[in-house]
Amino acid sequence: MLTKRFLSGLLPLLLLADCVLGVAVPGKVPEDDDEEFMHPFLPSSARMSAKHINGEDTQDYWLSASKEHIQEKLNYVRNTKRAKNIILFLGDGMGLATLAAARNYIGGEEKKLSFEEFPYTGLSKTYCVDKIVPDSASTSTSYLCGVKANYGTIGVNAHIKRGDCLAMANEANHVFSLGKWAMDAGKAAGLVTTTRVTHASPSGVYAHTADREWENNALLEEACGELATGLDDIAVQLIHGEVGSKLKVVLGGGKRNFFDPEHYDKGRRTDGRNLVEEFEALSKGNTYVKNRKKLLKVDPKETDRLLGLFSKSHMHYHLEQLADEDNNEPTLEEMTEKAIEMLENEENGYFLFVEGGKIDISHHDTMARIALDETAELSKAVRRAREMTSEEDTLIVVTSDHSHAFSLGGYQPRGSDIFGAAETPGTDGKSYLPLSYANGKSFDIYYDKEAHERVDPNSLLTGNDFEQLFPATAPLESETHGGEDVAVFASGPWAHLFTGVYEQNSIPHTMAFAACVGDGKTACD
Amino acid sequence: MLTKRFLSGLLPLLLLADCVLGVAVPGKVPEDDDEEFMHPFLPSSARMSAKHINGEDTQDYWLSASKEHIQEKLNYVRNTKRAKNIILFLGDGMGLATLAAARNYIGGEEKKLSFEEFPYTGLSKTYCVDKIVPDSASTSTSYLCGVKANYGTIGVNAHIKRGDCLAMANEANHVFSLGKWAMDAGKAAGLVTTTRVTHASPSGVYAHTADREWENNALLEEACGELATGLDDIAVQLIHGEVGSKLKVVLGGGKRNFFDPEHYDKGRRTDGRNLVEEFEALSKGNTYVKNRKKLLKVDPKETDRLLGLFSKSHMHYHLEQLADEDNNEPTLEEMTEKAIEMLENEENGYFLFVEGGKIDISHHDTMARIALDETAELSKAVRRAREMTSEEDTLIVVTSDHSHAFSLGGYQPRGSDIFGAAETPGTDGKSYLPLSYANGKSFDIYYDKEAHERVDPNSLLTGNDFEQLFPATAPLESETHGGEDVAVFASGPWAHLFTGVYEQNSIPHTMAFAACVGDGKTACD
Repeated sequence: MLTKRFLSGLLPLLLLADCVLGVAVPGKVPEDDDEEFMHPFLPSSARMSAKHINGEDTQDYWLSASKEHIQEKLNYVRNTKRAKNIILFLGDGMGLATLAAARNYIGGEEKKLSFEEFPYTGLSKTYCVDKIVPDSASTSTSYLCGVKANYGTIGVNAHIKRGDCLAMANEANHVFSLGKWAMDAGKAAGLVTTTRVTHASPSGVYAHTADREWENNALLEEACGELATGLDDIAVQLIHGEVGSKLKVVLGGGKRNFFDPEHYDKGRRTDGRNLVEEFEALSKGNTYVKNRKKLLKVDPKETDRLLGLFSKSHMHYHLEQLADEDNNEPTLEEMTEKAIEMLENEENGYFLFVEGGKIDISHHDTMARIALDETAELSKAVRRAREMTSEEDTLIVVTSDHSHAFSLGGYQPRGSDIFGAAETPGTDGKSYLPLSYANGKSFDIYYDKEAHERVDPNSLLTGNDFEQLFPATAPLESETHGGEDVAVFASGPWAHLFTGVYEQNSIPHTMAFAACVGDGKTACD
Repeated sequence: MLTKRFLSGLLPLLLLADCVLGVAVPGKVPEDDDEEFMHPFLPSSARMSAKHINGEDTQDYWLSASKEHIQEKLNYVRNTKRAKNIILFLGDGMGLATLAAARNYIGGEEKKLSFEEFPYTGLSKTYCVDKIVPDSASTSTSYLCGVKANYGTIGVNAHIKRGDCLAMANEANHVFSLGKWAMDAGKAAGLVTTTRVTHASPSGVYAHTADREWENNALLEEACGELATGLDDIAVQLIHGEVGSKLKVVLGGGKRNFFDPEHYDKGRRTDGRNLVEEFEALSKGNTYVKNRKKLLKVDPKETDRLLGLFSKSHMHYHLEQLADEDNNEPTLEEMTEKAIEMLENEENGYFLFVEGGKIDISHHDTMARIALDETAELSKAVRRAREMTSEEDTLIVVTSDHSHAFSLGGYQPRGSDIFGAAETPGTDGKSYLPLSYANGKSFDIYYDKEAHERVDPNSLLTGNDFEQLFPATAPLESETHGGEDVAVFASGPWAHLFTGVYEQNSIPHTMAFAACVGDGKTACD
């Protein structure tokens, strides 16, 4: 044992020495692994003893839980009815590490998020045509239009590269969403998001654009110049486009892209237009609401089409809403509920897209606590949707567009705070955090450039403040996405088709099959 | 745009200033996100242009692929026959990021590993009784014995804490594996691993121990002293235990735990025993082999029971085997093939456990390239097993025990080398790597303590050398596991029960249901 300890103690010094000499140091494939470090002895200490949960220390507990689980699987009858309604929930950037950590956030590892109770799960391969790790625009084209696209592009095939104004004008390259397929078949359609309604994910429902950034005319014209003539920005496509102009309900953030500053002081349009007024002018039954109170009062019977824009840009994080006495934004659950109320009396059923879009945005800023809270909010919205609909005629699919370079490591005691530091320190004697990112802006605060050493994360912990940044390996302004598969959870008619490993773009086709919409083979054939 | 750029340029300075003052700096919830950084414009450069793959730039390509996918799902007939044979493959530490990166390693994102073609997938919750993120011992108890246990313990319930010699003696706390259930029902059983056959994962098949480290008498006695009397180390349990002594085939590494130095100079036993000789003495039909050549020559018809120990400790990495002209170790695929040959003529069928155990070990050492290669090796072994068996009567389940704090980030062009640096630099002007770890020993080589700055990863790239270490956020001697769910892939009788999100310990119960073994409800009831 002494020899082992001695040698492993030397290792960092050897590595350091090589570093100083500027020599590339490959790892050494160990002749004989040193397992003391690989699975360290971690007795519970007074500070961090594991919480005792239920009867988990008996075999009976696990045996009877497994019996129940198997019985539940056996009881499940495959539903091969036609899906009258189809709802697609998207947790933007919601990878498996986010889901597991979110369970801790809502009460413990033994819990499940609402959609984790769904009977069928699959794995969605998320790469896009030109990148190993995709963005939310290319993936929106994939999980909504059924076609993989290039990074940064929406509702177009991969003949179009990001920013190609000329190619965007060629309608042969446009691809259409499950929302259009549903409406073509006589169903209604709608969308809900916590981001701007013109942001990458929701705009996959209705837009065709060579660049996700072209949300208003100013951005489109800045990029395309004269070529912008004849092209529509995303907000215009939402109000006047072939698909957008027929959506029965649109709820989210992003007012700034619909107004000239003359009509709304934070408006970003430069063409003098007021798209909300244009929306209202289109039909007497068109209703616009701009805050939670008004949304909750909307009577679906008296409303043909509903547009709700609740914030200048993205809606605020749920934790910000909670902290703000003057909050007048609805929650994702409230928006989902109202959208279903708007759609549920449609004779031919509906397609609804609901995005928890700020999981992604908080991860980009390495704000893990917010990401987990936004995931919990998505879980609430899915639960409400499942309550308001029947498994008999409503297919609900919950998935993500891509993951993040986010991980849940360490060996924390059950019941401990995963936002806190791990009990055992790193080799530099300082603690490390179980939650961290591969890259991101937090790098700079976790490295003390004056003292020339890693900052002990303990000194940066902010208690329950949700703004805390979690550490990163490399400094990037914005943490990157992760390339591993994301999970797909399905419940309702033909949910059993969603198991296995498949390309992300098959999701809308499989939903279309279940609902008998679209050009492909359907359950009604 | 100028204002946005100016403000975001200031951000690192502001953060740094706060750092220097020693003030905890929570992140600021941005009033209006700066999307320039969140999804940067990443045109393909001459150096890293995306590879053009098949017809991926047309919608037809994606539409017809989806149609095929749906048709395949529809064609699949649920198999509710009794599973004569059950095979459990384990990729130790094989999380989803490992799988996605391994696809790139075997040819591209569009590829699938052999088991990713299986019709059913599920998600396994891996936490153990006392830790949020488990080790391979507690999880072995879970996916083999159907009971979650404490960190570091094997084949015992959670009344036993790691290292409790006294409690280990109490047989009421012992739990038994699917291997025993199968043998009790008249089936044969065996195990294959690339680690020591007494290591945590395989020993879940046959052992009961309060500490995974007690692989030989010396380690057991060092820990328990007088309390060791009456307790058996793991190697003794493999040769003489109730379950171990009946296993028809055992192949892997770890000779050192079976011999006293008198019989094998690297032996670690101190009790003078030669367990291999004892194994051979038990029965005339018992055969021991110690290298690849001898293994391949084994005639199953003339061999009752087969023990193969091919290395002192763990077997070498496949890439090490390839690089060694004198290699005399078999591959995982070869061992799997021989094990199935040993078992396939059993009238009542068999249970086989096969572990690709060194995915985990290479991840602990932040050696990503090796981890991906070992994953590819597991894929080959699964493919061979599927070829040698029939979906009609053989249930194959492939899963992992836990993930790693490993991520695949960045936005690399399709077809590029994921082991190389990302095209765009970090905010410090230096590159970063798409593959990295949350923590691990590589921290020390990626930070230059003399120059007081991050080392540019480009200067550390080792080309195709497999020993390269990938960066980490915090310095740990051994990189930690990850706590997110791992995937379960199933093919054969009752494979459809393996979809959904469930506790890891329900896996052996569900396999037992399919094969009509064990105490619970079965498909034959």
